[in-house]
Amino acid sequence: MTTINETNNGMKKIQIFDTTLRDGEQSPGASIDPERKIIIARQLGKLGIDVIEPGFAISSPGEFAAIQQISRELQHVEIAGFARAMKVDIDAAVKATQDAARRRLHLFISSSDIHLLHQLNKTRKEVVQIAREMIAYGKQFVEEIEFSAMDSTRSDRDFVVELVEAAIAEGATIINLPDTLGYAMPDEIEDLFRSVRRQARGGETVRYSTHCHNDLGMAAANSLAAIRAGATQVEVTVNGVGERAGNCSLEEIAMIIETRKSALQMETRIQQSEIYETSRMVSRAMHYPIAYNKPIVGRNAFQHESGIHQDGLLKNRNTYEIMDPEAMGIPRSMIVLGRHSGRHAIKHRLSEYGIAVEGEELVNVYNRFKQVADEKKLVTDNELIRIAGEMTDTQPDPYMLSDLQVLSGSHKSRIATVTIRENEAGTEHSYTGTGDGPLEAVIHCIQQAIPVAAEFEDLEIHSLSTGEDAHGEAVVTIVNNGERYRGTSIHSDIVYAAAQAYVAACNQAMLTINKLANEESVI
Amino acid sequence: MTTINETNNGMKKIQIFDTTLRDGEQSPGASIDPERKIIIARQLGKLGIDVIEPGFAISSPGEFAAIQQISRELQHVEIAGFARAMKVDIDAAVKATQDAARRRLHLFISSSDIHLLHQLNKTRKEVVQIAREMIAYGKQFVEEIEFSAMDSTRSDRDFVVELVEAAIAEGATIINLPDTLGYAMPDEIEDLFRSVRRQARGGETVRYSTHCHNDLGMAAANSLAAIRAGATQVEVTVNGVGERAGNCSLEEIAMIIETRKSALQMETRIQQSEIYETSRMVSRAMHYPIAYNKPIVGRNAFQHESGIHQDGLLKNRNTYEIMDPEAMGIPRSMIVLGRHSGRHAIKHRLSEYGIAVEGEELVNVYNRFKQVADEKKLVTDNELIRIAGEMTDTQPDPYMLSDLQVLSGSHKSRIATVTIRENEAGTEHSYTGTGDGPLEAVIHCIQQAIPVAAEFEDLEIHSLSTGEDAHGEAVVTIVNNGERYRGTSIHSDIVYAAAQAYVAACNQAMLTINKLANEESVI
Repeated sequence: MTTINETNNGMKKIQIFDTTLRDGEQSPGASIDPERKIIIARQLGKLGIDVIEPGFAISSPGEFAAIQQISRELQHVEIAGFARAMKVDIDAAVKATQDAARRRLHLFISSSDIHLLHQLNKTRKEVVQIAREMIAYGKQFVEEIEFSAMDSTRSDRDFVVELVEAAIAEGATIINLPDTLGYAMPDEIEDLFRSVRRQARGGETVRYSTHCHNDLGMAAANSLAAIRAGATQVEVTVNGVGERAGNCSLEEIAMIIETRKSALQMETRIQQSEIYETSRMVSRAMHYPIAYNKPIVGRNAFQHESGIHQDGLLKNRNTYEIMDPEAMGIPRSMIVLGRHSGRHAIKHRLSEYGIAVEGEELVNVYNRFKQVADEKKLVTDNELIRIAGEMTDTQPDPYMLSDLQVLSGSHKSRIATVTIRENEAGTEHSYTGTGDGPLEAVIHCIQQAIPVAAEFEDLEIHSLSTGEDAHGEAVVTIVNNGERYRGTSIHSDIVYAAAQAYVAACNQAMLTINKLANEESVI
Repeated sequence: MTTINETNNGMKKIQIFDTTLRDGEQSPGASIDPERKIIIARQLGKLGIDVIEPGFAISSPGEFAAIQQISRELQHVEIAGFARAMKVDIDAAVKATQDAARRRLHLFISSSDIHLLHQLNKTRKEVVQIAREMIAYGKQFVEEIEFSAMDSTRSDRDFVVELVEAAIAEGATIINLPDTLGYAMPDEIEDLFRSVRRQARGGETVRYSTHCHNDLGMAAANSLAAIRAGATQVEVTVNGVGERAGNCSLEEIAMIIETRKSALQMETRIQQSEIYETSRMVSRAMHYPIAYNKPIVGRNAFQHESGIHQDGLLKNRNTYEIMDPEAMGIPRSMIVLGRHSGRHAIKHRLSEYGIAVEGEELVNVYNRFKQVADEKKLVTDNELIRIAGEMTDTQPDPYMLSDLQVLSGSHKSRIATVTIRENEAGTEHSYTGTGDGPLEAVIHCIQQAIPVAAEFEDLEIHSLSTGEDAHGEAVVTIVNNGERYRGTSIHSDIVYAAAQAYVAACNQAMLTINKLANEESVI
């Protein structure tokens, strides 16, 4: 039999404690309604999370109900009930998690002098006393007690030891030493965990947890330092959401452990294949866009711009990739082409759309590509295919937006007229449609023209410079048959840019569908 | 006299080497045109950067010209000429940086077996030979030579030592050990730097540099590990832009060193007050939005959502803040209010707009606020002021968008009609305007109605859910008299949302201007 923290292969098992729905939800302006919390909790279960902290029961009746529902439904995940060291909080947390198959109570109180002095107005002695009483109180109802010494990294070391010792004496089974303000450096974290474990009486009899914030950009490395110093649980949020600069990112710590498992001799239960889907779901539910350069889940995380890197990658993926994006469910939207891209990359990209260019044709396509890249910076796949169409005899984009008129404003319904050119046939047709917004009206027009069963997923627009005449860049994502397609466009009219990006995404989908159909017909 | 790496106060001086314009520009789809490079380089000079790497001279004539111009103009900053270990690259780098007051040549070659085997097709012996020849070649023209052993963290340790030893023997003066793929952990980086320094002949006679990528979210901590192991230079990019998940963020490493300087006994020359401006400039030039939760420069980095944190903050800022956002030039757009916000926070926020609410009035405002927060998640400052206006006798928003019609589409100019209500007077007026896009046309209308000399700075729109009927959230930033004001709005019509957000931003500006005018008239 293996213990809780050791797996059959002798690797140390690290528990992932997800607090997206509690600390993560404290992202400014990003609260999640109770129904969505339940949907996210299900996905966290699928992802292989060990412990979920679904909310702060005392904070509102809706919150309480969501925690109750999640406790009832997720019988294979441990549920943490979060509470200040106060009876009223504990009662609410205990009650809300009543029906969980496995649960713990998570109690916290500050240990730093600055918090004691300015916020709690308590002496150290009083804080120890409160912690003792409240742990004893909670222990009547719940066996597993996690105790957090808030702001522990800015606290007097001896006092943290004293407080932890008291907590263990009253029955705390898991000790969390949070870096509440993202202030610590990895060696300090390591030192904190090692000394508390050694110096607190009973310190070797309990489990340890780490909870790091990212104010200085070190949450992942600090969490890693803690587990190297003996913590067996890491508290994280999806996409690193949370107060201020957020918490340690689930995907970062999970992939650090996965990528470096032979060096670390550790592993988690995280199902890599669910990482991307979970990230998208939380981003949408919280209205929280993911940074382009966010490690692992950002749109650029696996995109290689430099010609040197692209060249290496085409020869052997391991030259410039340490993780396999496809294993995480990340759509291989490949290398974004730009002015640094080499001829090899252009040829390779076109070949993925079944377009073979060689010799002089390739030189022509490449030269034209360089011109466009110099002007537009970004060259999307559909622009490249269009260039290839212009310079060779290969197929152009199936559809083109050739005219658009739409009214925006205060009235209930918007009307749009859209003209779409079918490039192969050389024909143009106009369509009209209505919708609550101009884009919905436009999409209703385009859907009549382009026979792709595409579901609109996501729109982002941002201005490309200052001044009211700034161009906007629109990025539209659609889903067809479970595959995501992205179209981008730049225009002075944001609605036009969004419409063009939508058509571009449909073209991407059409080309892939046609390519698959061709492959099948060959077989 | 102090040496280059020691300052008068005995603190170790860490040099900041900025590669935003070279490695950072390799962000997919984010290339910067040469004219903008020069503007950014000037700002980097103002920020206090020690070394600027302005581009890759061999890559294009435009790039070459920008490097030349920056070398001529920035006489107080050292300029790095970047080159593969090839004569043609070195010639271009040497020529482009000719007119710099101080310069170095930055040569690189891979040291990992995987790169040697799959990309370079060279033996280790050949790589050492090339490095020797190319350093000797470059040394004829430039005294200061930085040598980078690319992918050093995935390389055989003995080979890195051998290669560095050869580089030093030929005259390399700075040794850079890059974590090209963001693969290493802090203790590995520390070990690498310590052993190369000790084991390579001449290893104690040169300076060391660190260049970390953020694929696993550890670039900042890894850079810190390197400087603790003796590196005196950190290579960074603004906002952490760069290949894939990007490079170590300038603002993170600068603020780690600043915030923890007494523990580290280190300092940089970075002018904190220029951090935010630099971040915004690079974000705009690269069309690269900054994540809400980006440490230091993200819009949430200093925003506190939880009632517990807000309460502490109002009592003493140091309870929940480890850095001073105002010192970095970050507009104190304060705590975003949401459903977790407490009564104290509401009262405090209103007081910042000169609105005093007490007793029963405060209870009413707070209750109404909670209702709105439950529905809308985000409560912007102008919504709060509106609520306060409804529930008390205080002033409402000066202006309100009451009607809007605008045509979008393919035609050259868009026409808009906008009706604005002036709340105090209770009057409504309609305006017409034109523009290249619907938003420009709308702004031209609004500018006639609202007498704020506001410059439009930035627009971001993103969809709040999937499906073509998804609502959009618009965030508009305007600048008035050097101050930034932000307005947000959510609507099913993206143009309407953007227009409403623009009016909200103008209202914010008007309230501040009125408040200042009132203060002055009191004096």
